[in-house]
Amino acid sequence: MVRTIEIKLPRYGRGYHLITAEIFARLPKLPENGLLNLFIKHTSAALTINENADLDVRLDFASFFDRVVPDGASYFRHVDEGEDDMSAHIKASLLGASLTIPIRGGRPDLGTWQGIYLCEFRNDGGSRRITATIVE
Amino acid sequence: MVRTIEIKLPRYGRGYHLITAEIFARLPKLPENGLLNLFIKHTSAALTINENADLDVRLDFASFFDRVVPDGASYFRHVDEGEDDMSAHIKASLLGASLTIPIRGGRPDLGTWQGIYLCEFRNDGGSRRITATIVE
Amino acid sequence: MVRTIEIKLPRYGRGYHLITAEIFARLPKLPENGLLNLFIKHTSAALTINENADLDVRLDFASFFDRVVPDGASYFRHVDEGEDDMSAHIKASLLGASLTIPIRGGRPDLGTWQGIYLCEFRNDGGSRRITATIVE
Repeated sequence: MVRTIEIKLPRYGRGYHLITAEIFARLPKLPENGLLNLFIKHTSAALTINENADLDVRLDFASFFDRVVPDGASYFRHVDEGEDDMSAHIKASLLGASLTIPIRGGRPDLGTWQGIYLCEFRNDGGSRRITATIVE
Repeated sequence: MVRTIEIKLPRYGRGYHLITAEIFARLPKLPENGLLNLFIKHTSAALTINENADLDVRLDFASFFDRVVPDGASYFRHVDEGEDDMSAHIKASLLGASLTIPIRGGRPDLGTWQGIYLCEFRNDGGSRRITATIVE
Repeated sequence: MVRTIEIKLPRYGRGYHLITAEIFARLPKLPENGLLNLFIKHTSAALTINENADLDVRLDFASFFDRVVPDGASYFRHVDEGEDDMSAHIKASLLGASLTIPIRGGRPDLGTWQGIYLCEFRNDGGSRRITATIVE
């Protein structure tokens, strides 16, 4: 059996944001065993799983990815939508549009230190939509 | 219920190619709610989701990844299969072998601007095989 | 139907390790058609699929990722757990915490040259836990 839930996030600023609790609060009662897929319906934002405790990890993500994928790189052709647009597209594919997380004992089976990050790459990306799918 | 479909793509040249319509045309009638997994059975090509409108985005992907993962880097040990081989392996893992996409209302639930890219990293990679799996 | 299996790996040293056979040996009889999800419950290790034959590919992975994501980069703020910690977090998100692999004919449907890598980014990461989920 497969259930689908649409989640609309509030607007987040550019950066890496821990949204684990916000996502889980939107989910219905989960099965004993299953899979949870989270899919972001955008090409300039991403979802990833990483350390859920120290804000510095999320700040270091920004420092790293902004260095490796610079806004407005001189060789970008796709420049009409601003300097943060093409870099956002590349980061979106480096980090990925979806997560597939096991469900065990009626809960998402994340490790102790794992949290879900919304990666917002645009300076003003607006509200983002995620489709959550539960397979049981 | 799970169904499996094998898809053989024609030969594509090195680069990033929008294959959304080609993939969807090969799928059977989809369930109301479900998941679609696409898995490429190769280690020097990848699948990713990104902007489906402007060809320049795909050209910029090539420029970016060829800079970050240069063909024939001086420190590569795995060099017997050509200068584009080890770089292709690294790009394949950076972008990933599979996509998991929600199915809603009988259709793949992509965002308005999302399309599926075949990322072909070899100069002459030949035909590529994808396994599509539908969970309902 | 969804089944969940917990897999505890022995300690591996920093590097990229082919664990295909070790993972498959822990799985029960697989369905004719299905999906296998492997999810690593850590934020400083990852799973990826790549070339299963030449050890040099795995050594080149180490060379590449250690260059692109240097230990102890001068701009890292998250430094209390050692120089290999923040770099490990970034690599974990670049390569990803989970793999979703089709099952066909009762077997994981990997391509001829595809194998599963444990990517251990810490100098002393200890034993790692993976949740395997089988959907049929």
